[in-house]
Amino acid sequence: MRRYNLGIDIGGTSIKIGLFDLDDNLLDSWNLPTNKSSFGEYILHEIAEVINSKLVISEIRGIGFGVPGPVAKNLVFSCVNLGWGKKDIVSEFKAILNDDEIVIKVANDANLAAAGEIYKGVAHGYVNAFMVTLGTGIGGGVIIDGRVVDGINGVAGEIGHTHIDDLYNLNCNCGKNGCLETVASATGIVRLAKEYLNHSKKSSPLRKYSDFSAKKVIDYAKLGDQVANEILDLSMEYLARVLAKVTYIINPDIFIIGGGISNAGNFIIDKITKFYYPLVKPFIQTTHFEIATLGNDAGMYGACYLIK
Amino acid sequence: MRRYNLGIDIGGTSIKIGLFDLDDNLLDSWNLPTNKSSFGEYILHEIAEVINSKLVISEIRGIGFGVPGPVAKNLVFSCVNLGWGKKDIVSEFKAILNDDEIVIKVANDANLAAAGEIYKGVAHGYVNAFMVTLGTGIGGGVIIDGRVVDGINGVAGEIGHTHIDDLYNLNCNCGKNGCLETVASATGIVRLAKEYLNHSKKSSPLRKYSDFSAKKVIDYAKLGDQVANEILDLSMEYLARVLAKVTYIINPDIFIIGGGISNAGNFIIDKITKFYYPLVKPFIQTTHFEIATLGNDAGMYGACYLIK
Repeated sequence: MRRYNLGIDIGGTSIKIGLFDLDDNLLDSWNLPTNKSSFGEYILHEIAEVINSKLVISEIRGIGFGVPGPVAKNLVFSCVNLGWGKKDIVSEFKAILNDDEIVIKVANDANLAAAGEIYKGVAHGYVNAFMVTLGTGIGGGVIIDGRVVDGINGVAGEIGHTHIDDLYNLNCNCGKNGCLETVASATGIVRLAKEYLNHSKKSSPLRKYSDFSAKKVIDYAKLGDQVANEILDLSMEYLARVLAKVTYIINPDIFIIGGGISNAGNFIIDKITKFYYPLVKPFIQTTHFEIATLGNDAGMYGACYLIK
Repeated sequence: MRRYNLGIDIGGTSIKIGLFDLDDNLLDSWNLPTNKSSFGEYILHEIAEVINSKLVISEIRGIGFGVPGPVAKNLVFSCVNLGWGKKDIVSEFKAILNDDEIVIKVANDANLAAAGEIYKGVAHGYVNAFMVTLGTGIGGGVIIDGRVVDGINGVAGEIGHTHIDDLYNLNCNCGKNGCLETVASATGIVRLAKEYLNHSKKSSPLRKYSDFSAKKVIDYAKLGDQVANEILDLSMEYLARVLAKVTYIINPDIFIIGGGISNAGNFIIDKITKFYYPLVKPFIQTTHFEIATLGNDAGMYGACYLIK
């Protein structure tokens, strides 16, 4: 009897496999390191090994996969971090498991993080959500009517690479300049801070450090340092401008803020909404902003949600 | 036997009623003027009169309504042009027709124009589309997985009021400054042109006129006037920047350009894409741009699509 679902989040460093019963309960979870050798060709086989060691394959109803790259209609376009180009995980994994009946679906990990927060996290009960993950880069996920939105090229939600007219027009590792990611991700906040300090003569405890983290900027801002607050205000204003555009495009019920920067809690939400609210009409200002609650497990939960 | 569907587009000036069979064929259509007296309280009754004069109510399967204002979950928030505040058209119209079995759905007219183009127009065969209507104002419509997206406050697609950092920071009749509508709608192009001419010393045949239309700007641009081209380039660059954000938020299969400005055809699409393509990654540049084909009938078709 097929009585389990699996939610699998393939990251650049590790892979999380979640075992769920058909009533949405997480029964167990397993981690394995991501083997990126030979252009990631062992990844699916090593996942299958773990599954085979734990379960009888014929008991699995469905498997959802989250991957760090663009996906549309269950087909991966590329995952640079894994060494993958175009990849049909559905066919490959059915062949590896030698089971054609298992339901397999695939989506982008940032979109699945949003799905996870709707499934088991802070957005439970909502059906339209936009999640922005402020980590090393910026990820974004879109859920409309309870369904994950991929987009034709798999870039739905990928607001990290929207062009903003930022003060310094920083270059992005996507090859363009002025991407939101260059000023509002964790690394972006640091870059913005360094530019800001270089272009200003104001004193700040940040000047004590030759290098510092985004957390350091946030910590000094929380302590009341004016320059650290000006930097974060600038960074979150750029983000807020993009989120206001999200509102006028899909008008979600809720914005979910995730990633390392979201550990700053309401402090960071207050920074965002201070700039967001004046950009939208008063009757839209009811949109919720919440901090994500599932952390690194969001993608695993979202992958299971995908096959529900 | 219930064998007809009706698609009804309620505009500020006139109302279009389309009669469809259940195989999606338009059998007939009727127009009536919009009676805005007494805060539009006669509108639904006058529509019902037309329907009663043409059809037996028990033969109607469903009625879709498009209205010029924000709508979510079939509830109208307001239609300033009609004099309406919050309105439950579904309940009211079922009561007026004295038939509780008819399926009635309601959506925003710009969203339904997009649905119409998918149903019977240039986007037929696509399931994810973003339509921008460049008329007196700017309307926008979002279709994802073949379904109309309202948004929680009914403003999904309403990109006319996204804030852009335009050169002149023009005031918008929504009460804010710097809305896309102030520079890229038909009236916006005229406003932008006048500002541009005032801030420039370059000669242009546009200077012969104390007042002119957007069509005049486009006509001179087509004839090769440099200033008219600079004005339109500026205007369409603002639009392209917002459409690039649409791509990184929902990544539609196709952008549909409608409204009066779209009569300029490929000339206007070339202006938009010249700025759009450099803002998105190369592999996304396959997104289609097409001119809408249904004109003022799009909303009527879309209203029928809504109840399919």
